[in-house]
Amino acid sequence: MNECIIGVDLGGTRLRVAQVDREMNIVDRKEILTLASQGSESTIERMKEMIRQMLPSDPNTHVAGIGISAPGPSNPNTGVVVAPPNLPGWHNVPLVQILQKEFGYSTYLGNDANVAALAEIARGAARGFRHVIFITVSTGIGGGVVSDGRLLLGKDGLGAELGHIQMIVDGDRVSSLEREAAGPALARKAVAAMEAGQTSIMRDMVQGDLTQVNGSTVGKAAVQGDKLALAIVERAGFILGLGMVTFLHVFNPEIIVLGGGVSTLGDLLFNPMRDAIKKHALDSSYWQDLEIRPAELGENVSLVGAAALVVTKGGMEDVGAVAHKLDKP
Amino acid sequence: MNECIIGVDLGGTRLRVAQVDREMNIVDRKEILTLASQGSESTIERMKEMIRQMLPSDPNTHVAGIGISAPGPSNPNTGVVVAPPNLPGWHNVPLVQILQKEFGYSTYLGNDANVAALAEIARGAARGFRHVIFITVSTGIGGGVVSDGRLLLGKDGLGAELGHIQMIVDGDRVSSLEREAAGPALARKAVAAMEAGQTSIMRDMVQGDLTQVNGSTVGKAAVQGDKLALAIVERAGFILGLGMVTFLHVFNPEIIVLGGGVSTLGDLLFNPMRDAIKKHALDSSYWQDLEIRPAELGENVSLVGAAALVVTKGGMEDVGAVAHKLDKP
Repeated sequence: MNECIIGVDLGGTRLRVAQVDREMNIVDRKEILTLASQGSESTIERMKEMIRQMLPSDPNTHVAGIGISAPGPSNPNTGVVVAPPNLPGWHNVPLVQILQKEFGYSTYLGNDANVAALAEIARGAARGFRHVIFITVSTGIGGGVVSDGRLLLGKDGLGAELGHIQMIVDGDRVSSLEREAAGPALARKAVAAMEAGQTSIMRDMVQGDLTQVNGSTVGKAAVQGDKLALAIVERAGFILGLGMVTFLHVFNPEIIVLGGGVSTLGDLLFNPMRDAIKKHALDSSYWQDLEIRPAELGENVSLVGAAALVVTKGGMEDVGAVAHKLDKP
Repeated sequence: MNECIIGVDLGGTRLRVAQVDREMNIVDRKEILTLASQGSESTIERMKEMIRQMLPSDPNTHVAGIGISAPGPSNPNTGVVVAPPNLPGWHNVPLVQILQKEFGYSTYLGNDANVAALAEIARGAARGFRHVIFITVSTGIGGGVVSDGRLLLGKDGLGAELGHIQMIVDGDRVSSLEREAAGPALARKAVAAMEAGQTSIMRDMVQGDLTQVNGSTVGKAAVQGDKLALAIVERAGFILGLGMVTFLHVFNPEIIVLGGGVSTLGDLLFNPMRDAIKKHALDSSYWQDLEIRPAELGENVSLVGAAALVVTKGGMEDVGAVAHKLDKP
């Protein structure tokens, strides 16, 4: 008897559905635009149709279940997509219940960053690790934490929101890691410096229209050696490194996997990050054996993770179950 | 067949050993001064003698194991007391191995704040909860985290060091929760303000010798309505509240239990803490059902927790095991 898993990646822009085998390989996949503005019902109908197309034609292939990656906030305990900012029209949608009723398979829901953590453990940079922090830095900062082999979810699955740790307390001013180190923060600092008169190639990159500067602009300018952009990226790396210091003392992980656009900056970002960790961690035992690696999985990360969600019963069972499947094809 | 557990509380000042029953009641206990300066060997000999005295005389009473609460850093995986600052002469002492060899019982080691979290779940303020943050604020800030029923330890048992989250990044200045909100921070701020000319009853409380001001001085003055002390306590509550915001987003707990000297200030501290949480948490779902309670267990907290360590096999098994024992005496 063969076995397969259906993975669903409900993104703000794209909706992907795949058939995944026991070793977390994608056997077949379909992708369409989510068209979130048309509302949840229309999207769910298209999702159902795509799932039907991905079901195995061979009656000897057993479907182990359906795993769904959705933007947060989503509640893995209740199976409800709560109110993701990038899915307008989705509000308290009981997606697990809907798909379970339609197809009759065990169905699991996870938020995209948690699902990505599982995927990186199953097939990516964190393969084989049991104490893992996954952090993705782009326009926002998301996180997924696996502690002693299990996904850290918390009471309502709202845990591991690593971008929302508080990093600055200065009089009345309070700011989070996300507000200081994600893409928009980089852009904000670049614009403020240029408005204050600093020269930078970024001004030319946006044809003088500073409203067009974004995190990617700063990253590209830094790679080209622009002084202002380099200083901003270095500062972001330092602040991210201090965020890591918090995560190291809170979770004592074996590995930190960094994903998202900002992470592609490589050592420009990683070096000041590592320096901050070494300088501010309480003890070298927190970082001397620590691995810090860029994420390895690309656009299929959510599909692989959604399948891993099924194998680990929503992340509640040990990630060893994923490794087990991998070891014994 | 009756069952009992031996709990050991190895503190910097006092060494306590107790016989604890299945319901986590202390049946008998002994307490002596640790006299840490005499070195680990002498203390371990006295510890062994006290354990012998606490073993059940009734041959029908089975000893389930020995649990040890020790100051951090201690490694629960290896059973080694690493190098606690308040246990001079203790350096990489394999305490679990030593006691296991001497008595032949399963033996578990935990750091005091983690053990206190288990104790508060077994017999205290967090009884029956599965997502628990315990934080103790006195001269330092320690933490214990139970996530989905299991103690969060991390790779080498160095996790849940909640005092070491980074709270201030201001240019080159970096500071942690502990350095901003524990007792010495309160004292430092009080002394600085008085040296700058602010009046306060604290000056009289220490007969003009400002080197004698400590966290307790500030607390007592605040309770008496001293304006400076009140402002300092309020600020500490605000910063602690922002630390809680970090913990809420990272762990999504059901309950926060606050222990240690500073926590006895009650609403003077708890009100600004609650205000900071409500103001800075991403969403009300993080705090609307959240319980925040002072710790309930007194000086026996470590003995009860050490016994709970045995029942949960070092915190690796579900805390439901403790509740189970409680429900079925």
